[in-house]
Amino acid sequence: MDKIKHSSQLDKFFNPASVAVIGASNSPFNLGATICNCLTHYIKFPGPVFAVNRKAEEVSGCAGYSSVTGIPAEVDLAVIITPASVVPEFVKQCGEKGIRNVVIESAGFSEQGEEGKNLQQEVDSYAKQYGIRLLGPNCLGVMNNVSRFCCFYGAYDGIMEALNKVGGVSYVIQSGGVGVVIIESLMDDIQGINKMVSIGNKTDVDESDLLEYFDSDNTQVIAMYLENVADGRKLMKTARRVKKPILIFKSGCTEAGAAAALSHTAGMANNSAVFDSACRQAGIIRLKSISELYSLPKMLTEMPLLKGNRIAAFTNSGAFGSIAADIMTEAGLAIPRLSSDTREKLGKIKGVFNVNNPVDIGPAPPQVYLDLIDIILAAPEVDGLLLMSSIWRDFVIDVIREVINMCKHHGKPAAIYTPNSIQRIISVRKQFGLPVFDSMEEAVRALVISQEQFEYLKKKEK
Amino acid sequence: MDKIKHSSQLDKFFNPASVAVIGASNSPFNLGATICNCLTHYIKFPGPVFAVNRKAEEVSGCAGYSSVTGIPAEVDLAVIITPASVVPEFVKQCGEKGIRNVVIESAGFSEQGEEGKNLQQEVDSYAKQYGIRLLGPNCLGVMNNVSRFCCFYGAYDGIMEALNKVGGVSYVIQSGGVGVVIIESLMDDIQGINKMVSIGNKTDVDESDLLEYFDSDNTQVIAMYLENVADGRKLMKTARRVKKPILIFKSGCTEAGAAAALSHTAGMANNSAVFDSACRQAGIIRLKSISELYSLPKMLTEMPLLKGNRIAAFTNSGAFGSIAADIMTEAGLAIPRLSSDTREKLGKIKGVFNVNNPVDIGPAPPQVYLDLIDIILAAPEVDGLLLMSSIWRDFVIDVIREVINMCKHHGKPAAIYTPNSIQRIISVRKQFGLPVFDSMEEAVRALVISQEQFEYLKKKEK
Repeated sequence: MDKIKHSSQLDKFFNPASVAVIGASNSPFNLGATICNCLTHYIKFPGPVFAVNRKAEEVSGCAGYSSVTGIPAEVDLAVIITPASVVPEFVKQCGEKGIRNVVIESAGFSEQGEEGKNLQQEVDSYAKQYGIRLLGPNCLGVMNNVSRFCCFYGAYDGIMEALNKVGGVSYVIQSGGVGVVIIESLMDDIQGINKMVSIGNKTDVDESDLLEYFDSDNTQVIAMYLENVADGRKLMKTARRVKKPILIFKSGCTEAGAAAALSHTAGMANNSAVFDSACRQAGIIRLKSISELYSLPKMLTEMPLLKGNRIAAFTNSGAFGSIAADIMTEAGLAIPRLSSDTREKLGKIKGVFNVNNPVDIGPAPPQVYLDLIDIILAAPEVDGLLLMSSIWRDFVIDVIREVINMCKHHGKPAAIYTPNSIQRIISVRKQFGLPVFDSMEEAVRALVISQEQFEYLKKKEK
Repeated sequence: MDKIKHSSQLDKFFNPASVAVIGASNSPFNLGATICNCLTHYIKFPGPVFAVNRKAEEVSGCAGYSSVTGIPAEVDLAVIITPASVVPEFVKQCGEKGIRNVVIESAGFSEQGEEGKNLQQEVDSYAKQYGIRLLGPNCLGVMNNVSRFCCFYGAYDGIMEALNKVGGVSYVIQSGGVGVVIIESLMDDIQGINKMVSIGNKTDVDESDLLEYFDSDNTQVIAMYLENVADGRKLMKTARRVKKPILIFKSGCTEAGAAAALSHTAGMANNSAVFDSACRQAGIIRLKSISELYSLPKMLTEMPLLKGNRIAAFTNSGAFGSIAADIMTEAGLAIPRLSSDTREKLGKIKGVFNVNNPVDIGPAPPQVYLDLIDIILAAPEVDGLLLMSSIWRDFVIDVIREVINMCKHHGKPAAIYTPNSIQRIISVRKQFGLPVFDSMEEAVRALVISQEQFEYLKKKEK
């Protein structure tokens, strides 16, 4: 009962029927105005949007009021983007008005010395008094591509375009800057954003709350960028219940990184080794870079999970077999010798240079590719495939498309990399909707996290 | 004397006045014909090109002869692309004809069992008898963007386009496939190819010979992809004399990788730790991935070398400061605390969030960026800059351009990353000719190898 109530209160952050933007005005460079503009002109938000400013002036078509309490209608969500000093007063007004969901995008709180800490405490006590759920302060806001809602400040065209591409990945990001890189990069990928929340100093709503929320909506993969963990026990307890893949990239892992994080979003970074082992116990996949936040989810949504670590590599350029063998070995994957049965089957097909693993072929027509790959995927000594074929002829694209079907048929995944320039890889991925990775290293990482998720799921299902 | 003679003989591989393509015919899918076509139609090679085939037929405008000895003119370079079994006979004919430079692109030699080994020995003995320098067998050939010569087989439009972009990096690659990725990728970068040689099984000309050759031409950076080292002592002895940066990526570092390399280009891979320490002693920069072969050279040609390891990071999104601090610490770079003098100067400028290192700013006009960066580069406690500013406004591009001038003025390098999608980074890099890296990780690596080269140079100059 409590859980449902809790979830439904968070839901107003993502699906409000009406919004007040507090601090939106017509002054030059006003950030609140960019939110009003995004809602009215770009999204064409169907509900009412109110602007709150001293002069009660209309902003980008949103009716203006000088106070929150003066708004003559119900408001689901308030977005505050004013100087920090006046934020507590507006939170109080929100409470009086009956608003129970408030996003504070303003900076200048606990990340900035004693004075900021005091302001944050004041905000917290009003929130508690009125039963308000708070997002932020010091955050970018919320984006929901499913219902097309966005209260990011300063969103430029590229960001707003992303609202038109609904995907399966929901993001919790502590910093807006990382969100922007993710949004831009996913425009060049086959997976897209479901929802994105920037949590900043997370004085109330934190990563665990959102993990729980995303577990109950249509999110397929949950991905997070964290500079610190608010409550380790709470996060791990929640994660253990969630069966959707949870990917986390955490900064502040070295002393220097932690010091930088402290002055950015005010959280104490946590010990990296402890965090690592806690993640493993709770079934959280820990990532190694920002780029993995947007590049790896497609492996989890487009391919069967990897059920063992025995990988066959297939390439049309021998060098990639050798390099991939190094990368896979270092990543803890096994490169099994193919059985005599498998080798015999492969040997019957023309154009194969090596029937050993990695399998290496010369110039050959598409059917040779398909016959070989089918034999490899069917082999009981193989759990998954690393496919590395450069697009030397257009038919390779058709081969890749067919391999995806074969993978589903055999219940084994393929991580696909085409040894070409990134420009070419991206254009093939976008144009044909194929889960192709930017590098061999990334493809191998995708295999590793796929198996990690498979192992976690087995444990969680018990 | 011997050195000059040796160099000039190698030079015919890169600058021949006349070429014979042995094995070029009009049969369907003939690979020799693609070489003739490239030379006559794409490059418009000024000298004569002869095709040698059984029927003595003309191929792509190249006069046909049934034997090498029958060609009624002097031939500087022969390119053999026939079945392996007839290669020894053609090498003998080349010797009789007085050709002293032969590229053998055919596969089927020591990488393929006893029979292949015997063929290779036969080839070797003819070469010795006639004083022929051999490139290959089992290779892609030679590309020279300076004089516009290319004898790669199967070169498609994208490869031939690269001939129009002359750059400062010369490549020695053991495998053609890796060459293709480098060529395609450099089309999206600011540095370009000077020359590229694929060495395959390297029965005669090896990486050391080419290192020496590239030391004496207009190459700025020498980069290599190796699966094995032919003669470790020879390579290291040569490298110690060369002051141009030498970058090497080597595969076959794990047992599995070495096994794959063996069946690909027939070389025994060498112990990784031994190779590592030999490289350090000889002043060779060892790379970690294929992509570093094309992404890192621009740091060495466009920026002053890094003379110490103390890096200041500058960002317009706090998260990147924290993440970069982690990456730099792990890479062995130091993130010094700025002196009180420097912090005081920074503090006088409006819009700075953190005057600590990483320096973190909010929305600010271009002059604020430039003033801050100039103070940082001038600080005696700082050896180099990691610049991470997303292109949130177009002026950031102008700022980057000006920072490059500042770097030259202060004699300190900046590694530049813009936290945007790769598409955006590539388009800015290409359009404006700026040395921007694809990721923070790559930018940090660029700083590391820049310092490595500085240290090597100091030792070599002694």
